[in-house]
Amino acid sequence: MKVKSKFGPKYQEFEIGNIVYLAKDKPLKLQNGSNISNFPISYQTYGKLNKDKSNAILICHALTGDQYCASKNPVTKKDGWWEFMIGKGKAIDTDKYFIICSNIIGSCMGSWNPKSIDPETDKPYSMNFPIITIYDMVEAQNLLLQHFQIEELHAVIGGSVGGMQALCWSILYPQKVKNVIPIASSYRHSPQNIAFHEVGRQAIMADPNWQSGQYLNKQTYPAKGLAVARMTAHITYMSENALHDKFGRNLQDKDILSFSFDKDFEIESYLHHKGFSFVDRFDANSYLYITKAVDYFDLESDFNGKLANAFTNFAKNNKNGKFCLISFSDDWLFPPSEMKKITKALIACDIEVSSIVIDSSSGHDSFLIENESLKNTISGILATS
Amino acid sequence: MKVKSKFGPKYQEFEIGNIVYLAKDKPLKLQNGSNISNFPISYQTYGKLNKDKSNAILICHALTGDQYCASKNPVTKKDGWWEFMIGKGKAIDTDKYFIICSNIIGSCMGSWNPKSIDPETDKPYSMNFPIITIYDMVEAQNLLLQHFQIEELHAVIGGSVGGMQALCWSILYPQKVKNVIPIASSYRHSPQNIAFHEVGRQAIMADPNWQSGQYLNKQTYPAKGLAVARMTAHITYMSENALHDKFGRNLQDKDILSFSFDKDFEIESYLHHKGFSFVDRFDANSYLYITKAVDYFDLESDFNGKLANAFTNFAKNNKNGKFCLISFSDDWLFPPSEMKKITKALIACDIEVSSIVIDSSSGHDSFLIENESLKNTISGILATS
Repeated sequence: MKVKSKFGPKYQEFEIGNIVYLAKDKPLKLQNGSNISNFPISYQTYGKLNKDKSNAILICHALTGDQYCASKNPVTKKDGWWEFMIGKGKAIDTDKYFIICSNIIGSCMGSWNPKSIDPETDKPYSMNFPIITIYDMVEAQNLLLQHFQIEELHAVIGGSVGGMQALCWSILYPQKVKNVIPIASSYRHSPQNIAFHEVGRQAIMADPNWQSGQYLNKQTYPAKGLAVARMTAHITYMSENALHDKFGRNLQDKDILSFSFDKDFEIESYLHHKGFSFVDRFDANSYLYITKAVDYFDLESDFNGKLANAFTNFAKNNKNGKFCLISFSDDWLFPPSEMKKITKALIACDIEVSSIVIDSSSGHDSFLIENESLKNTISGILATS
Repeated sequence: MKVKSKFGPKYQEFEIGNIVYLAKDKPLKLQNGSNISNFPISYQTYGKLNKDKSNAILICHALTGDQYCASKNPVTKKDGWWEFMIGKGKAIDTDKYFIICSNIIGSCMGSWNPKSIDPETDKPYSMNFPIITIYDMVEAQNLLLQHFQIEELHAVIGGSVGGMQALCWSILYPQKVKNVIPIASSYRHSPQNIAFHEVGRQAIMADPNWQSGQYLNKQTYPAKGLAVARMTAHITYMSENALHDKFGRNLQDKDILSFSFDKDFEIESYLHHKGFSFVDRFDANSYLYITKAVDYFDLESDFNGKLANAFTNFAKNNKNGKFCLISFSDDWLFPPSEMKKITKALIACDIEVSSIVIDSSSGHDSFLIENESLKNTISGILATS
């Protein structure tokens, strides 16, 4: 199916491998109260579903990730974002498992999102798109599993915002997941993280080309605002040490300071590049909606201030279910201390949990970088279940 | 003297207490090579200069600070930013000392800055203002001291970027400072800090009202871009714990999530307020120039990669000179580890140094918040010299 992608200043068309329309018979009720029906979800699968449909693994992608976890992304033409993890003979072995990765609702790689046509107006939703939550994303994934007639997942695995989805799976459908594996994630978005997201949103909405969200109709695009949002976020994905090792205070293509507003330091050029290349592959309104969904995520307040309450349903309905929590030592966006709090809550519920902090030097982004400990942990957990 | 301040969307006039024109006879050569003459410096003084002119203390202000450290700011109508520290009987006692605080060059409170008139074009410099450095700021302060015929300072004290100026004083004029007291500062701006500054600059320059810096001529103002820059910076001034204690994930004036892009969380409203109130008191181009000066600051690379070399001149020329380095435990912008590196360099040069890390919960901003340890440390150091 060809999808006309109108995000990014370079408007493009690309081939989306698989799209399925869900909630055809019965609408899906979102957390904000709206009902949606017949909405598209784009996804990729790898490996083969076995006869008893017991070998499925759901991979949940991060904030600006996509379904192309183990195959070339048609927009960026880059390899899948977890290519080192998923494949023949790899940690998540496509010879053994049937791997599903779907684009979260709100995101712009083919699933239902602010660019989708609102049936009531016959125009793109833009800012009339409803506010969505992580729970809603999981409900959509659940409908996709129903489409595959899969009743139980061998595992749900996700990094960062993908880890939040994995946690929500354990809450909404505890009986459906044997192994819950959140990586570099948390039970809630911290005030500091909310603050960084808010700055990003303000940068987008301050761009006059955002046009109160109506940029599609106005044929404009808030590229600069979105790039600034991405630059801010990108700093939080790296550790101070990683930045130091990667860039130090190295000068960019020159030996002395320019005494101008040129990009003197490599880090400045790198950020600029990261900001503006992001603009080509991501949609500004999607960024607003997904960051808001993440900011709303707080299992503690959802369960009356007691995190353990979030998992009592799992403890009751999935006696053999297990958690494996993976965090990275120098991740300051989702620090290991937050995973520790989840570990304690799970132990309080008598749920089997293994928890590992991997020594890292790449900050939050560590889960996207090939790492033997990460691969071994995941392959180990999948094998022993 | 009345100064027409054209920063901020609310254009205003305000009374600047003292302005002196410096470098009248002999131009000041800046680090970028340009010569400037007859340029204004605005300043405030507190207390009385004694007969032998030995009781002067120079206070160096931070990035967006000003000369009103101990008296009401005519723009914001707020008390001085170090009112708890400076005054009759206070840690920096105006009964004993003559305190000078001048607006750094590049800043917008009366000193020479991008809004000043370029004598060559008879128009505001805007982006033709030369790139300045921390050294240049100190050279201007030195001319101000010459104006007062002060040959030696009892102390130079500064927080954050003010601390960088204090360090530069010890390098440029070692014989002129008895006590060098940098607070919450560093010997260089880290890659992460440069990255945050660059995002702020990009936010300003992405605002179409910035008009390539010509907003004064075009009667516009990049308020939104500057506000986003300030919001980003503000996050770095607070600690994660401070944010958590202050805001948690408290909802803003409502009991349930709004399911909209309203400001749900108090931290969002707070940042918004901080961003937009800053716009009323600060000039966008000043922000660009001063952040750049700070990013250029690196004593290590200035002295061939060996920080101790920065202080050999002080060791040689000021046998009785002392340093007192003060940092705050939860300051992640200028962490105590960076001050420790300065301490080691000073010890290597056989310079007397006392170093203190104050337990704090307000992050980088701790130096602006009343704190007994901070007051006692400073009054102690000033008294024992």
